[in-house]
Amino acid sequence: MIGVNESITPESCIFCRIVKGDAPANRVFEDERTLVFMDIAPVADGHTLVIPKAHCTNLLEADEEDLGSVIAVSRQVAQAIRDVLDPDGIAVYQLNGAAAGQTVFHYHMHLVPRTRGEELRLHGRVPGDPAHLAETARRLAAALGEPGCRSAAS
Amino acid sequence: MIGVNESITPESCIFCRIVKGDAPANRVFEDERTLVFMDIAPVADGHTLVIPKAHCTNLLEADEEDLGSVIAVSRQVAQAIRDVLDPDGIAVYQLNGAAAGQTVFHYHMHLVPRTRGEELRLHGRVPGDPAHLAETARRLAAALGEPGCRSAAS
Repeated sequence: MIGVNESITPESCIFCRIVKGDAPANRVFEDERTLVFMDIAPVADGHTLVIPKAHCTNLLEADEEDLGSVIAVSRQVAQAIRDVLDPDGIAVYQLNGAAAGQTVFHYHMHLVPRTRGEELRLHGRVPGDPAHLAETARRLAAALGEPGCRSAAS
Repeated sequence: MIGVNESITPESCIFCRIVKGDAPANRVFEDERTLVFMDIAPVADGHTLVIPKAHCTNLLEADEEDLGSVIAVSRQVAQAIRDVLDPDGIAVYQLNGAAAGQTVFHYHMHLVPRTRGEELRLHGRVPGDPAHLAETARRLAAALGEPGCRSAAS
């Protein structure tokens, strides 16, 4: 069964702490329902996460309006990735359950710029360079029209 | 650049032909904007595709209302997969550009039931057993409250 023993409280959820500003992140964009920030251990340059601000474990439990916001914002972020990084492609994925590779039990959509011929890895093994993550966040935020978007990591 | 030389006309698009009923598929569910059917070369039992009926190449070009329908229907299909197949997890992915692994240039969301410890492959190499695909489509359709959903393959 998906999600058994994978529920966490918003108090112990790292993404909820990022939403509240209690944990650092390279923030790219936010609106009422949605937050976008750089994956801390990117599998590719520009690896970005789009999450609903409200806590939910996975797709099965997500609020429909939150899902609509996440996918609409994901399209905007994909366009910003295209404009800023011009990758060969973009893989979008969203994992439900530890068995599927989910590691943070707060619904999140991955956007991963792809380079022709490279194998897709779902998760990075090492943290990205902090300065480069912050700079990429700044460039994507600017492309999204959020030049003043704060980065809690900066 | 994503999508260069990847545009196809609706007339030559296999998914548009499925939408119109001109090509066979193991159909699971449909509403005004969205169609769900089994992937013909599944990477796992229950591998399902959710597409907008209107043609668009990828996320960058997709209509926002179509995206909202696709993700809301994906949630329902994920719940049906959980209820019918009870997998350990579900991976959701959506590929943009041939370099990202996109093979049909009509936006589509993959829902793939996952088994603990198995590596995720993005695409199958051989067609699934036709009778088993049809039977899985029927069971998912029933879980979605579409007992009479027609299968163009049956």
